[in-house]
Amino acid sequence: MTERASVVLSGGQDSTTCLYWAIERFGRENVEAVTFDYGQRHRIELDCARVVSRDAGIRQTELSIDTFEQLGGNALTDDDMEVAEGGDGELPTTFVPGRNLVFLTFAAAHAWQRGISNIVTGVAQTDYSGYPDCRQETIDALSQALQLGMDRAFVIYTPLMNLSKMETVLLAESLGAIDTMAQTHTCYEGQRPPCGQCPACLLRAKGFAEAGIIDPLVAL
Amino acid sequence: MTERASVVLSGGQDSTTCLYWAIERFGRENVEAVTFDYGQRHRIELDCARVVSRDAGIRQTELSIDTFEQLGGNALTDDDMEVAEGGDGELPTTFVPGRNLVFLTFAAAHAWQRGISNIVTGVAQTDYSGYPDCRQETIDALSQALQLGMDRAFVIYTPLMNLSKMETVLLAESLGAIDTMAQTHTCYEGQRPPCGQCPACLLRAKGFAEAGIIDPLVAL
Repeated sequence: MTERASVVLSGGQDSTTCLYWAIERFGRENVEAVTFDYGQRHRIELDCARVVSRDAGIRQTELSIDTFEQLGGNALTDDDMEVAEGGDGELPTTFVPGRNLVFLTFAAAHAWQRGISNIVTGVAQTDYSGYPDCRQETIDALSQALQLGMDRAFVIYTPLMNLSKMETVLLAESLGAIDTMAQTHTCYEGQRPPCGQCPACLLRAKGFAEAGIIDPLVAL
Repeated sequence: MTERASVVLSGGQDSTTCLYWAIERFGRENVEAVTFDYGQRHRIELDCARVVSRDAGIRQTELSIDTFEQLGGNALTDDDMEVAEGGDGELPTTFVPGRNLVFLTFAAAHAWQRGISNIVTGVAQTDYSGYPDCRQETIDALSQALQLGMDRAFVIYTPLMNLSKMETVLLAESLGAIDTMAQTHTCYEGQRPPCGQCPACLLRAKGFAEAGIIDPLVAL
């Protein structure tokens, strides 16, 4: 049986890199993407995910999740909350409790229906901004829950888990995906070209700088 | 610190029994319920959950999840699919992949925001209709994922896990919750009074019969 894979594609730098990683590993015709509209303030992310999928020539499914907005209390779906990094022992205001767990569970449910067992996600525990749902041990536990809960031998791939942002940029380069980075979105302020000041922009800029590669998004 | 608990309340017999179990264990003032509107065909379930919560005098939060309808492919959200039990090695058409995993993850996210660490769910592996997400080992793995993914020492209580339907009825009786069962919904056909023919009705009837207790819903 041909192995097929579904990539959780947000339209950001990391998940786009993962899409190209999956294409190299599984073959373009065996890869598809799933994108979640969870009420993110910055709708530009969804546009980016569509453009990236189209350019890559892969099937993309967009699923909406209206629940996070109802839960509220985070800066990614609430217009009136400011982006702030967490202090000592505090989570940043951009933490959406359960977000990656729900994304991966719905990605698995969608994959289940399409007969796909491999799921690829761009979470990374290096350089991570204090999100506990990006850690390998969280993914391992969830992977177990998904396998048992849907009776399917899912494998969750996390190609970026232990890469620094610099290494992620170098990986994208080795996959021929640097040009595509012009179509991705990272900025927490929702700006394009990016604001260059928010934690997400700074992390991205640091990665490109250390890799010695010009970010085509900034060069726009 | 007073321990508080959130009960995943569907409006059915099992989750209603769990609500009364939680009230006995944690105290009425420390218990609340969360109900999911996931596009279930039988909207009567939501009405039942509201009435049960009101009668019990506890706070109830209703959260909608629009994603399962988009996924489709199951008899609980698709009008045009028939309820059918699974054959050899097959899952029943009422299996919604990821449903309990998503419910518990959103229940945990909601609990996280409200400073609650105890979650109660009515899943049961005895008499279970072939749903892999109702098994204890699935719940254990998910519990681990939720704890790690949200950095909170969640405890998931499954008071019905190893009870037969008869024992669940006897538990409800010991909790003084039999009268309330008149307000619950079980029937896969969405009928009230219940159809008495579908797998869910038959299972419920068997439980009451073996317990030697008259189901107040059927006696209506």
